[in-house]
Amino acid sequence: MTDPQEAIDAESAARANERDPRIEEQTAGEVQGGIPFIGAGPGDPGLLTVTGRELVESADLVVHAGSLVNSELLAEYCADAEQVSSIGKDLEELVPLMRDAHESGRDVVRLHSGDPAVYGAAVEQMDALEHEGVPTYIVPGVTSAFAASATLRTQLTLNGVSNHVAFTRPQGKTLDPEDDHIGEFVGMGDVTTCVYLGTHAVGETMDRLLEDGHDPDTPVAVVYHASWPDEEVIEGTIGTIGERLEEAGYRASAMVVIGDAARKAGYERSYLYDGWANRGGTESEADD
Amino acid sequence: MTDPQEAIDAESAARANERDPRIEEQTAGEVQGGIPFIGAGPGDPGLLTVTGRELVESADLVVHAGSLVNSELLAEYCADAEQVSSIGKDLEELVPLMRDAHESGRDVVRLHSGDPAVYGAAVEQMDALEHEGVPTYIVPGVTSAFAASATLRTQLTLNGVSNHVAFTRPQGKTLDPEDDHIGEFVGMGDVTTCVYLGTHAVGETMDRLLEDGHDPDTPVAVVYHASWPDEEVIEGTIGTIGERLEEAGYRASAMVVIGDAARKAGYERSYLYDGWANRGGTESEADD
Repeated sequence: MTDPQEAIDAESAARANERDPRIEEQTAGEVQGGIPFIGAGPGDPGLLTVTGRELVESADLVVHAGSLVNSELLAEYCADAEQVSSIGKDLEELVPLMRDAHESGRDVVRLHSGDPAVYGAAVEQMDALEHEGVPTYIVPGVTSAFAASATLRTQLTLNGVSNHVAFTRPQGKTLDPEDDHIGEFVGMGDVTTCVYLGTHAVGETMDRLLEDGHDPDTPVAVVYHASWPDEEVIEGTIGTIGERLEEAGYRASAMVVIGDAARKAGYERSYLYDGWANRGGTESEADD
Repeated sequence: MTDPQEAIDAESAARANERDPRIEEQTAGEVQGGIPFIGAGPGDPGLLTVTGRELVESADLVVHAGSLVNSELLAEYCADAEQVSSIGKDLEELVPLMRDAHESGRDVVRLHSGDPAVYGAAVEQMDALEHEGVPTYIVPGVTSAFAASATLRTQLTLNGVSNHVAFTRPQGKTLDPEDDHIGEFVGMGDVTTCVYLGTHAVGETMDRLLEDGHDPDTPVAVVYHASWPDEEVIEGTIGTIGERLEEAGYRASAMVVIGDAARKAGYERSYLYDGWANRGGTESEADD
């Protein structure tokens, strides 16, 4: 097997000269040849997509994200398939595992939590597999921020309250302080900031926001295990949520939503479906 | 019927005193009593969720977002139901329509495109219905940015390239110039900026980015009708995409992705599934 980083670099270099023809030829959601990298959604088996379910149900080997994927989903859709957790396995182990199974004629699927585009590590596996001659593709899924928003019975954008959404993560061992933009997003005033991978760092994140002068009364909602049976919600503000979360004891697997939209406060009717389209004259995806 | 804005304000005021107990009691994805506001996903019927499909299939009345929802999805899942497009209808028309159908014992679903949390207008309808005594809830869906990312065979976050994602829309009749943050997101350098509702304004948006000194070679990919049968991809840069899009003639229904992640260029393996968890010590949702 080629060294994975070399395979990734070779694929990148090849693409710089010639674009992958499948980008033009195939549409998102289309079932293609090879190994699908499927977004499992936030947790609830019913929040997997119809196509994702069909692919998982017909798979012989399901490589999944361990405890990040709800075991109920695996039990419901692929109890008879071989199931392998990716946790603790590196590319050097995963790529030959999936390649060999695919080459021996087995149907292989790779199941990531949420949507693979957001804090996934799908494409590096895909490029390494492609370099070994195994075609791959992505089947999108529902990200946990949308499940959290559904639980909170709100929208991440809300007329007169929030015009934009940021998916972000806090500084730490894998993100330098200068690449932590949470304060900038919150400071814009009309952005709903959804913090992934930050459950363990909520206290420090809020302390930094307070030090930078952000309004301590800004609403913050934390949704633990959004859409799982043990889902829990802790609500507070930039000033209070750190302590509340510490009492709850969560260190992982929670979505942190910062901004007035988290409380669905003070919004105005948008008239969107009434034809933003007509008013704007040219835009017709106003209902998305 | 109560005036919709009064109903919305009354619901907001009530929530300020007492949180909706269903936030604690019910999980995202759970089928509840009342009218579900369902994310139809980006277009492909297979990208609706399993629960969304079940609800649509059993509905008597489907109120949908008109041409924003793929007619193939309606034909496949609810051909026998009464179908009503919301386009051109205001709250004053939609709310009694859904309320009366619900109260007469019919199963009503409201189908929004993408996920209802992103540039939807779900909660104002929900609050107006709740005020009339009709329970509602949200079933999340796949947003078009994830379908666009799947088509481009990339991730919106990509190790060493993009650490964050912004969902945003450009200034125009419904957004003041000071609330247009596209330049700020692009200027951060490690944000993948996904522009919704901006197909008609790509040229002006890119001109503003150039005037503000952003690198004209920054990749931009435009995915028209992501996951629909007529999906198309136009690739370019901040410097070139405006003209290319003008040639193509699209004025709506495209997702504009700005940043190096759009070309999947120059990323590094992340070691995420290899246990970011273990390295970070405390965080275990690294695979989402």
